[in-house]
Amino acid sequence: MSELQQRIRKKSLHQRIMSAEDTIPFFKNGMDLGWSGFTPVGYPKVVPEALADYVEKNNLQGKMRFNLFIGASIGAEIEDRWASLSMTDKRWPYQTGNVVQKQVNNGGVRMGDKHLSLYAQDLAYGFYTKERGGGFDLGLIEASGITEDGSIILGGSIGCATEVIQHSDRLIIEINTAIPSFEGLHDIVMTERPPYKKPYLISRVDDRIGSPYVPCDPDKIIAIVESKKPDRGRALSAPDAVSEQIAAHIIDFFQFEVKAGRLPKNLLPLQSGVGNIANAVVGGLVQGPFSNVQVWTEVIQDTMLDFFDSGKLDFASSTSLSLSEGGFQRLYDNWDFYTGKVVLRPMQISNNPEPIRRLGVIAMNTPVEFDIYGHANSTLVGGTRMINGIGGSGDFLRNAYLSIMHTPSTRPSKTDANGITCVVPMVPHVDHTEHDLDVLVTEQGLADLRGLCPRERAQQIISKCVHPEYKPIMQEYYERAQRECFEQNVGHEPHMLFKVFKMQQSLAEKGTMKIPNWD
Amino acid sequence: MSELQQRIRKKSLHQRIMSAEDTIPFFKNGMDLGWSGFTPVGYPKVVPEALADYVEKNNLQGKMRFNLFIGASIGAEIEDRWASLSMTDKRWPYQTGNVVQKQVNNGGVRMGDKHLSLYAQDLAYGFYTKERGGGFDLGLIEASGITEDGSIILGGSIGCATEVIQHSDRLIIEINTAIPSFEGLHDIVMTERPPYKKPYLISRVDDRIGSPYVPCDPDKIIAIVESKKPDRGRALSAPDAVSEQIAAHIIDFFQFEVKAGRLPKNLLPLQSGVGNIANAVVGGLVQGPFSNVQVWTEVIQDTMLDFFDSGKLDFASSTSLSLSEGGFQRLYDNWDFYTGKVVLRPMQISNNPEPIRRLGVIAMNTPVEFDIYGHANSTLVGGTRMINGIGGSGDFLRNAYLSIMHTPSTRPSKTDANGITCVVPMVPHVDHTEHDLDVLVTEQGLADLRGLCPRERAQQIISKCVHPEYKPIMQEYYERAQRECFEQNVGHEPHMLFKVFKMQQSLAEKGTMKIPNWD
Repeated sequence: MSELQQRIRKKSLHQRIMSAEDTIPFFKNGMDLGWSGFTPVGYPKVVPEALADYVEKNNLQGKMRFNLFIGASIGAEIEDRWASLSMTDKRWPYQTGNVVQKQVNNGGVRMGDKHLSLYAQDLAYGFYTKERGGGFDLGLIEASGITEDGSIILGGSIGCATEVIQHSDRLIIEINTAIPSFEGLHDIVMTERPPYKKPYLISRVDDRIGSPYVPCDPDKIIAIVESKKPDRGRALSAPDAVSEQIAAHIIDFFQFEVKAGRLPKNLLPLQSGVGNIANAVVGGLVQGPFSNVQVWTEVIQDTMLDFFDSGKLDFASSTSLSLSEGGFQRLYDNWDFYTGKVVLRPMQISNNPEPIRRLGVIAMNTPVEFDIYGHANSTLVGGTRMINGIGGSGDFLRNAYLSIMHTPSTRPSKTDANGITCVVPMVPHVDHTEHDLDVLVTEQGLADLRGLCPRERAQQIISKCVHPEYKPIMQEYYERAQRECFEQNVGHEPHMLFKVFKMQQSLAEKGTMKIPNWD
Repeated sequence: MSELQQRIRKKSLHQRIMSAEDTIPFFKNGMDLGWSGFTPVGYPKVVPEALADYVEKNNLQGKMRFNLFIGASIGAEIEDRWASLSMTDKRWPYQTGNVVQKQVNNGGVRMGDKHLSLYAQDLAYGFYTKERGGGFDLGLIEASGITEDGSIILGGSIGCATEVIQHSDRLIIEINTAIPSFEGLHDIVMTERPPYKKPYLISRVDDRIGSPYVPCDPDKIIAIVESKKPDRGRALSAPDAVSEQIAAHIIDFFQFEVKAGRLPKNLLPLQSGVGNIANAVVGGLVQGPFSNVQVWTEVIQDTMLDFFDSGKLDFASSTSLSLSEGGFQRLYDNWDFYTGKVVLRPMQISNNPEPIRRLGVIAMNTPVEFDIYGHANSTLVGGTRMINGIGGSGDFLRNAYLSIMHTPSTRPSKTDANGITCVVPMVPHVDHTEHDLDVLVTEQGLADLRGLCPRERAQQIISKCVHPEYKPIMQEYYERAQRECFEQNVGHEPHMLFKVFKMQQSLAEKGTMKIPNWD
């Protein structure tokens, strides 16, 4: 028996094995497709490529368009290929790739983003495909195996694969034989519709409340295709000085909170977003004073393996292993060690307010920018240009025990090394409100906003977080706005509304947000 | 035994009975005070009044200032009296009253607002009074009785009285003998700190998971004062044509969703905010086609009694009975009928994401305004002037099965009956983001935003919700913003950022938001 056949324990399904090319006739223009995949691991690879080849070869650009509902990002090689062939119409809820981003921002792709836990749930409720009565025409799932009864053994991510399997009319399964079977790593709970929802009885990060398999009606599986393409993974550059300074502020803050009795000695379960600052924070914890730490998050990055190796991290719950190629190799080489300390959950559970609040997660995420009153922009540069999507940041930040956002205080523009300040008077797009965030951090310092009124918050943020080159500009804004608003008794949150985006205008016209004054 | 003594079943506490005036020495300038009270029911009345009298008589204005942490609003007669005597320094998380509002907006009062469920929880975590290590110097609680072991029987609201009782160093209890004992109406669960939090096992609106009493160390009770002041309640004006039109759109929408199979025949538990539109919606349901309806909300208003009377409402869970004087009389006159169908919960539970998501609540709230991409402003007029506070709107809207916001399409300015449009290009303050809201309604129509990308949302909102006098202005904004942004590949959510508040500027300068063009 081939490796592929061994992975498909339900023998009757062996007759559905076919080549990627053989699946092409299942796809019709305009279909709603659900895919597995998350940050970018566990997404289908060979069937989407075969379909792209077919469209290209037959000049079907613009005539084979699809609505894609996926957990989060997939590999840019597929995302951009599909976009460049005009194959992507709707795209929810997150994307990475230059071509697709350009189309999202010029009207070519209809993208939407929503808090991941809500998105997954709303997929199950049929809200995104109302016209067809909910669900998907076709689901594309990468799996590492199929059980005796046809249930699906997923791979290195879950995302919303559960909802896709449950609500697709028909399924194409890619069995990836280049990765080991991930059997046993998943804790699968399906999304029920109210009034039939049940409590998610997770009181510790390592509690299991489901099954290792996604239940699946085998009659829905119309094709099984072998894939030998491992996840390309995501490598991170080494932390820079700015990221390390931010991480140091955060670890100092944790120590202060432990001393004050507001955090246990082993902290509370940590969530950290994607990217280099998150990586530096985990790197700092590897060196840091805390033991028996736990993680409740949506992505496990490479440094988390170092954290396990250090003996300081006890357990991690996630919806995805977002490792580099080398990281996956480390995982496979020490399978029992790592997998004994990890569980993967559907993103509807990993990102659900219920366990996040109960466990008291400490959430840490990077925005594009935040403002002096504590609102943050995570998605739209200049208020209009989509980068990737909101992802799970709102799920975690809204429900965390402590909500922390961290960013460098400035970024370079084309002509000025500090041409963009990441702390502004008013963010031009709000993803997280002043009612959601507790702590803001830049390399300059940390502002603890808990219990402060907006004006106290503003002074704290300007004093602690703003880059020295922007401090006078921001201080002048705040004082003048306060003066003008108090005069009219309209100054709970003082602003000069009709000048509020003057720094953004300066960036557009002069290449820097440094303005001479607020006149 | 007096009525008061009968209400205090723990006899040893009778010796703590004193007059309101006798409690004055317990108050020191700068204290952190926790109070009971919610929308404005169940707040302490005689002690705050006695303290105000004392301050006034002794010219202590500005020398007796306090930080007030309360569930939500209290009676304006107390709130404004305290503010006018400069007795209010910090004030969380919601207020009503002309005097206090003016001070919130001119720097006199340091107000902060946060989602009510988080606020209550964070009180218990000690986040708002970090300087003193958490908790309150003194708690002021209105109760309807005290049990044999000193536990507290609250009155017509709970709010955060549970957290205040748990975390106050000392307590003053006002026993209100003008109201009946509310014994048995409450389902009390205390807020534990992670990692010791437990699941809230509520799967039906009428599930009880706690005790009827708030546990209390009797040694903390330093004074018991009799109050004979009934809650003044909140009367609502009869619904106007605009509110009724909005209600009609919503009931049509419910019927459509039932037909589509996305809602059960008896709907899902309803939350409706405070005010006249909410009242009209409930009024519409009283006449409407749905039976066996349930309510999961934070305030029960008068029309909810009509809803019970109609036989169509089975059960209601709330944290407060926000009835008028006449409404309370109806309640008292038919006590067994109504109280058999009602439970009051701490606002940390009534507003908690866990039961809201599990039950699949349908949330309906009124904002100040919303924008064409689906962000809503609930708190700050013109982006700077606080009205009341965010209240529980974010708790419900973020976690609901369906998130609905409703507002008249316009409001009058001083010189123009439609001088203010409640649908704008960009709200000047965001309390609820595009990632949170499903449905927006004005008397003009209903926009179902589920599954739409931002640009589709904009067209839907402009077509369905905008007042005819503003439609050309908004349509021009959207089309021009799209054209300009697409040219630069920055148009996921098209805006003309440097003109975006032009309508607000016109209102400030010319008294109307009607502008001739966007040049």
